[in-house]
Amino acid sequence: MSWPPIREELRGLQPYGAPQLDVPVQLNTNENPYGPSDACADDIAGAVRRAATTLNRYPDREHVELRTALAAYLSRDTPHGVGVDQVWAANGSNEIMLQLLQAFGGPGRTAMSFAPTYSMYPEYARDTSTAWVQGRRADDFSLDLDAAREAVEREQPSVVLLPSPNNPTGTALPPEAVGLLCKAAASFEPGGLVVVDEAYGEFRRAGVPSALELLPEHRNLVVTRTMSKAFAAAGLRLGYLAADPAICDAIRVVRLPYHLSAVTQATALAALRHAPELLGTVDDLRAERDRTVAWLREQGLTVADSDANFALFGTFRDRHAVWQGLLDRGVLIREVGPDGWLRVSIGTPEEMRAFRAALCETLEDK
Amino acid sequence: MSWPPIREELRGLQPYGAPQLDVPVQLNTNENPYGPSDACADDIAGAVRRAATTLNRYPDREHVELRTALAAYLSRDTPHGVGVDQVWAANGSNEIMLQLLQAFGGPGRTAMSFAPTYSMYPEYARDTSTAWVQGRRADDFSLDLDAAREAVEREQPSVVLLPSPNNPTGTALPPEAVGLLCKAAASFEPGGLVVVDEAYGEFRRAGVPSALELLPEHRNLVVTRTMSKAFAAAGLRLGYLAADPAICDAIRVVRLPYHLSAVTQATALAALRHAPELLGTVDDLRAERDRTVAWLREQGLTVADSDANFALFGTFRDRHAVWQGLLDRGVLIREVGPDGWLRVSIGTPEEMRAFRAALCETLEDK
Repeated sequence: MSWPPIREELRGLQPYGAPQLDVPVQLNTNENPYGPSDACADDIAGAVRRAATTLNRYPDREHVELRTALAAYLSRDTPHGVGVDQVWAANGSNEIMLQLLQAFGGPGRTAMSFAPTYSMYPEYARDTSTAWVQGRRADDFSLDLDAAREAVEREQPSVVLLPSPNNPTGTALPPEAVGLLCKAAASFEPGGLVVVDEAYGEFRRAGVPSALELLPEHRNLVVTRTMSKAFAAAGLRLGYLAADPAICDAIRVVRLPYHLSAVTQATALAALRHAPELLGTVDDLRAERDRTVAWLREQGLTVADSDANFALFGTFRDRHAVWQGLLDRGVLIREVGPDGWLRVSIGTPEEMRAFRAALCETLEDK
Repeated sequence: MSWPPIREELRGLQPYGAPQLDVPVQLNTNENPYGPSDACADDIAGAVRRAATTLNRYPDREHVELRTALAAYLSRDTPHGVGVDQVWAANGSNEIMLQLLQAFGGPGRTAMSFAPTYSMYPEYARDTSTAWVQGRRADDFSLDLDAAREAVEREQPSVVLLPSPNNPTGTALPPEAVGLLCKAAASFEPGGLVVVDEAYGEFRRAGVPSALELLPEHRNLVVTRTMSKAFAAAGLRLGYLAADPAICDAIRVVRLPYHLSAVTQATALAALRHAPELLGTVDDLRAERDRTVAWLREQGLTVADSDANFALFGTFRDRHAVWQGLLDRGVLIREVGPDGWLRVSIGTPEEMRAFRAALCETLEDK
């Protein structure tokens, strides 16, 4: 026996994850810096207290009440509305992605994205034995539409993953890009899904539409969301999608039975009842983001336009030294994205003040 | 485009799951009929209230506090103790099984069990593109050790799944069977894991040891547990395993980041603090199980020896008619296992009275 008898392609790999360091100012994982209010936390505790009385029973496999609330929430972002049978939820949008690749990817099939893109996608592909192909974004991190369409037609991927706003660049996709790639992915057999990952969708700037608006036109379009960011509930692990009901039915075949606990369902429902309050922080964060982008540019740095709750800035000959300089001053950001760039999450005004001071000191030191 | 472009082998399949019917007496999914006490539910609500204040932050990926509590709990079942680095938890033991097959199974590898066995196993294999091979148990549902050893040596499975007590028969495996198969699975390259699924482990009869005792002898042994049954927390979805630390490290490579929510971790920790109370119901259920088995035998029925919180009984020429007769009388049991057999979960004394009355009426009707 070889030890451990793990799959050959996994041998020696490190687990994915940002370093969890104990630092005063944590701006590295795009968390919302504002916790729930006392009223919201009380409501969550009350909902879980009620769920606890029947905790000996399995939860509703179909999580109908939660899907109903999520559909109502999403319907605010599209004039066409979103129906309950178009919604599916799971433990984080990473479980959503895994389920999509289990049902529509897998051995002999391909998943595709355009770099720079979310660094977990290739891991989802690897863990479902789906081949992974990566195109490139333009230098300004937008999609070159002709090149992207050609790449989809050539590679014939079963799943195209498009974060919008993109992580780690913050770039939102225009609706014509999504529509074009949906058509391209429908042009071959058996056809592919286009998954628009709107994890940061609520942070987009005024006038930028959600891909939800395109659902009636493209049945191979999937839009995913999470409660981790705008809803300030990263600790809850609740991701969800809106798509054609046939896509939800396909996921039902591969989902683990009872994948969403009664406690998760109760907590998510309580948080959704507090949507206005939780989403109130989004406006503050968008304003702080715009201030941060403007300030970074004033320092002579290059900053990608951002529709998310973070900013990608640079470029630095030695980005690790800058990252370390910030960390030495108690500010943790993320060393991610193309060479020379760094990503900072948008925190509270105080946290951003600390970030600005630490960055000035670090750059002066050099 | 074909619609939906789901993987060919999944096309037309129905999602797994027992019917969720609204019936007065639910004895079909081996739930614990006793809910948590008010004190326990209060403690859960309090723990979640505290977790909610930092719900905007990602949870501890390594769930160290929970693994520490689970290790202490498991250490009661083995003189060798169980260390924190030997423990890993996930959203239900089905996610544990999925992670094990992602890391150790997959394309080109084989998973194996001995029928009758838990009906979800082949689905885990299918969803990880692991080949599935099934041996047979003897007529009394025990394992024929020579035949089982030969089958493992011949098929060279990467993962051997052994429920003990077995679902749906209730049969516990003797330690020599587990040890023999661990040796057989270590006799080829790269070697296989033997996963003893003790979902119902706490219900075993006096004198039946847990496979946890064998961990120091066999590093390819994995013992899985769940809080769904004895801990009366099916709604929580908390499964876990004890194994060599290298196996836990291999799972870390394929686990989704932050797979276990802060709410799940807080709830599980609170439930573990109430272990004596929650496990108190186990003694009642074991006694009720033994009474049920004895009563069924008095009716002239055949009943498999059970170390679980259910009983497999029969045999009936038309088991569906018996199942339907019970359902017509408000008692839902499970049509599962070999032809002619039915499985009843052990409920409260009142529920078992209703079951006995409904079964008598149904059998008289025939």
